[in-house]
Amino acid sequence: MTFKYNDVYLEEVSSVAGPLEEQGPLGKNYDITYKDYYVGMNTWEQAESKMLVDSVDALLYKVNKLKQDIDVHISGDLLNQIVSTNYASLSINIPLIGIYGACSTSCLGLIIGSNMVDKGQVKNAIVSTSSHNNSAEKQFRYPVEYGNIRRKMSTYTVTGAASFLLSNKKSYIKVESSTLGKVCDLGVKDANNMGAVMAPSAAKTIYEHLKSLKREVNYYDLILTGDLGIYGKKILREYMKVEYNIDLNNHDDAACMIYDIDKQPVFAGGSGPSCLPLVFNSYIYKQMLKGKIRRVLIVATGALLSTTMVNQKLSIPSISHAVSLEVSDDLF
Amino acid sequence: MTFKYNDVYLEEVSSVAGPLEEQGPLGKNYDITYKDYYVGMNTWEQAESKMLVDSVDALLYKVNKLKQDIDVHISGDLLNQIVSTNYASLSINIPLIGIYGACSTSCLGLIIGSNMVDKGQVKNAIVSTSSHNNSAEKQFRYPVEYGNIRRKMSTYTVTGAASFLLSNKKSYIKVESSTLGKVCDLGVKDANNMGAVMAPSAAKTIYEHLKSLKREVNYYDLILTGDLGIYGKKILREYMKVEYNIDLNNHDDAACMIYDIDKQPVFAGGSGPSCLPLVFNSYIYKQMLKGKIRRVLIVATGALLSTTMVNQKLSIPSISHAVSLEVSDDLF
Repeated sequence: MTFKYNDVYLEEVSSVAGPLEEQGPLGKNYDITYKDYYVGMNTWEQAESKMLVDSVDALLYKVNKLKQDIDVHISGDLLNQIVSTNYASLSINIPLIGIYGACSTSCLGLIIGSNMVDKGQVKNAIVSTSSHNNSAEKQFRYPVEYGNIRRKMSTYTVTGAASFLLSNKKSYIKVESSTLGKVCDLGVKDANNMGAVMAPSAAKTIYEHLKSLKREVNYYDLILTGDLGIYGKKILREYMKVEYNIDLNNHDDAACMIYDIDKQPVFAGGSGPSCLPLVFNSYIYKQMLKGKIRRVLIVATGALLSTTMVNQKLSIPSISHAVSLEVSDDLF
Repeated sequence: MTFKYNDVYLEEVSSVAGPLEEQGPLGKNYDITYKDYYVGMNTWEQAESKMLVDSVDALLYKVNKLKQDIDVHISGDLLNQIVSTNYASLSINIPLIGIYGACSTSCLGLIIGSNMVDKGQVKNAIVSTSSHNNSAEKQFRYPVEYGNIRRKMSTYTVTGAASFLLSNKKSYIKVESSTLGKVCDLGVKDANNMGAVMAPSAAKTIYEHLKSLKREVNYYDLILTGDLGIYGKKILREYMKVEYNIDLNNHDDAACMIYDIDKQPVFAGGSGPSCLPLVFNSYIYKQMLKGKIRRVLIVATGALLSTTMVNQKLSIPSISHAVSLEVSDDLF
């Protein structure tokens, strides 16, 4: 399902990140970075929730707004019962739409928010997401203290949080259109190979987006997927070529940008719902403000991994959602 | 945040329910009932997912529509990573907005869907939710086979699933307005007393709804909360009286209607995201079609319970969302 927008702008963005992300190639671009994984809290789950609060506070600070100036908060994360979001919401205190899309959360939130802002149902909306390496590993695989051996196809959950302020107020970057994806499942059962799980769903959503808007792939200066990693990125390109005869030459993957994969201990790259928005809200956003990149399709890719269902020998479904962001001509 | 709608109708509803629900006072009103808790599947999680599929299929059958006639599916459930929804979506195959609001899911979905239908961004939307006693007890408390002793304030998770078809096509019941709630937390830490957790958030959302639309409580023939249970229902009424000086005389609670609390082994009543929609989509919906009740405010109440956070000694936050449904005058 594809939506076209007339009156939605990205008024501001924020990004907060952990120590390993700060050491990565985009490290200088984040609004706040933390020296450790507890960020002053007692547990990793509470640390993740605190980062989400910080990302909203940083966003509001940048635009000089108060919480009561915001109509709606749309947020989700990887933890069971989206506890990072729910506990953060106690201090954020804005009417909440809680969502779950695993690592597709950022684009899912942007779609819901853009639909509401475009038609004037709200004047603005904050869209947020977070992830934390230790809270995610503990929940989905093994507590990191166990020193479990990782496979080279596994990705490294990003520690950080990011927020977007959508608004009907004209600004430099316009939310131009979006495509809501479907759940798909090609039978992958390997919980350590999320790239292979997600690549087909990314391909389907990109194809659906281009087809429904009658666009060539080169309409975009950049197609930025979320967290496929170095292997998933290759699978996506092959899938697009074989299945749809599309050369994805203008593509990059946030999982391959957020870390220095050759030097940092991150295996196939980053992952987690905050991976894509950390890359977009820092480096890409600034490139767009400078006019160096004008049209970007961000495609957040979600592996709907459940330990319960994997233990029941079921394969892992995935879903991807896409949002088109453009430098708005009338302001330049 | 309150929304007013002009062009959203409840075209049809469906409800499927488990054996204990069939034996309850509304048992004859469900579209499908099951003889056991496995509903032909191998596990409870897969059973819950199957019920969700059945509720969507039953809905489409009633309106003689195919899946490809539906623009968007909005769904969520209680299980980690909303697996009932995600695995159901493989066969439902409609673009998905996955949401998490615990037992507030039905109204959260109706709000997102109504906002999209009202402004013509989609022509229709299916909103679904499910719950399953055994899958929920296993995840949130103890597997039922353990024979864990329950306290009298505890509620009994409803087994069933329900779907709503929202449409811009005029029908007998109009979605008139809605109120999106905020997360609140009054410090309750008892995971066996969800009524006490949720009652204040229900009160805040009802009050916010009435205030923002400048309505007296008697505007509604019925205010129907989701799953407070017999004790939570009392707390809500007292809270409304003391805090806002409002007499909630036109109120009932779905948790107290779905079972015969005196005769069935359900402690303080029903709970789970399917509790409210099962009561509404069966008995109340039919009462509205007959014109016996004309204005109903449904208030889905969500306890954002997380075993992780309860183990960390944090209290349990909650959120409630409200949707106003009215018999549309111009069709009578």
